[in-house]
Amino acid sequence: MARVSQEHLDARRRQILDGAALCFARNGFHATSMQDVLKEVDLSAGAVYRYFSGKEELIAAIVGEVLGEVREAFEEAAKQHPPQPPDLLVGAVLNRTFGLRASLTVDGEPAFPRLVIQAWGETLRNPELATVLREAYSSVGEAWERVVEAYQDAGMMRADVPAEHVARTMVAMVQGFVAQQPLLGQAPVEVLQNGLRALMSMSVPPPDPGVDHSSVNLAETPSN
Amino acid sequence: MARVSQEHLDARRRQILDGAALCFARNGFHATSMQDVLKEVDLSAGAVYRYFSGKEELIAAIVGEVLGEVREAFEEAAKQHPPQPPDLLVGAVLNRTFGLRASLTVDGEPAFPRLVIQAWGETLRNPELATVLREAYSSVGEAWERVVEAYQDAGMMRADVPAEHVARTMVAMVQGFVAQQPLLGQAPVEVLQNGLRALMSMSVPPPDPGVDHSSVNLAETPSN
Repeated sequence: MARVSQEHLDARRRQILDGAALCFARNGFHATSMQDVLKEVDLSAGAVYRYFSGKEELIAAIVGEVLGEVREAFEEAAKQHPPQPPDLLVGAVLNRTFGLRASLTVDGEPAFPRLVIQAWGETLRNPELATVLREAYSSVGEAWERVVEAYQDAGMMRADVPAEHVARTMVAMVQGFVAQQPLLGQAPVEVLQNGLRALMSMSVPPPDPGVDHSSVNLAETPSN
Repeated sequence: MARVSQEHLDARRRQILDGAALCFARNGFHATSMQDVLKEVDLSAGAVYRYFSGKEELIAAIVGEVLGEVREAFEEAAKQHPPQPPDLLVGAVLNRTFGLRASLTVDGEPAFPRLVIQAWGETLRNPELATVLREAYSSVGEAWERVVEAYQDAGMMRADVPAEHVARTMVAMVQGFVAQQPLLGQAPVEVLQNGLRALMSMSVPPPDPGVDHSSVNLAETPSN
């Protein structure tokens, strides 16, 4: 076998991962065959199997990368000092996430959010990936909790709610919005930012341990 | 062939769908074989193939049901008059969603949120299911927009943000929280409700077309 540089090996590996990611983004894992992947990357079976033992290993590699990239987007957004308010924080994660693998598209739309959904599905059945995801969230959650504590310390947010709950809520909002892109149709990041700003503008009684905020209601709303 | 009642046929069909749903929730679509399904439902291949032509048809039937059930949960929550405030609204959807197919569990945890994630993945590659989902969201979105308009009409929420953006944001929050259950570990509905209440409590300038709310910042926050 001819000697090949590490650079060449890495580039070839990357080419396979990108081609396979595109197939999986397009058609999911169960409906994508190794034949589909070979056709997409335009390489022989021998060339591909030098790098990956099969579909399972390709899936695991791609999902691991996707989870890592999303983790970074969440962590980066939380690094800013002073912390950004919630609408800018979620905007920062989303802008970064939607810029990931921008060259990979399905029907002209970004492939990455599709990969995120498929990655979640795979994570449910693969204990190693589940560990990767939980570790990622443990780190992201902590970083986002510190941001929430900063809001609370600054008196910008009621302090009687665990920071953990707010962090998880903001993360949920971002995750849901990412999933919506391919499911419901593309929407710009501003949609979630506007929605969050509107929720933040709501008139609720100021924090008071004696007040149950769940009792806020719209009794005086004209029912239309 | 012995004559069988419609009731019997329906029950048998239900048994197959539930068994297959459990397999798919546990292991995803691509790693579940028809053999796994037959073993789970404890029926012969002949018995199962009388109802479903194969795995693809089973998947489509299950995903269609899951999307319909989630749609109902979102629609029901929006029906209350006067409309519930956001924290109660999202709580109502989640309580209903987490009660769906409560008898189906994977490792002692609810199978339904796992099915939702798998359903999203399948929807991405199946145009018919994609249509079902988009129609569902079109209806849910409208109902939730009316709720948002009620907040705005009552002066509880700034009115300069499109109701559509707020509706999509609240739906994203619920979708993300559902996905988090099997991915990050179970959390009670109150976590999202508390998080949302905290966000709703944030001090932001009152609605004013001249004010860019993205400029709210934490400049005075002690960086810790």
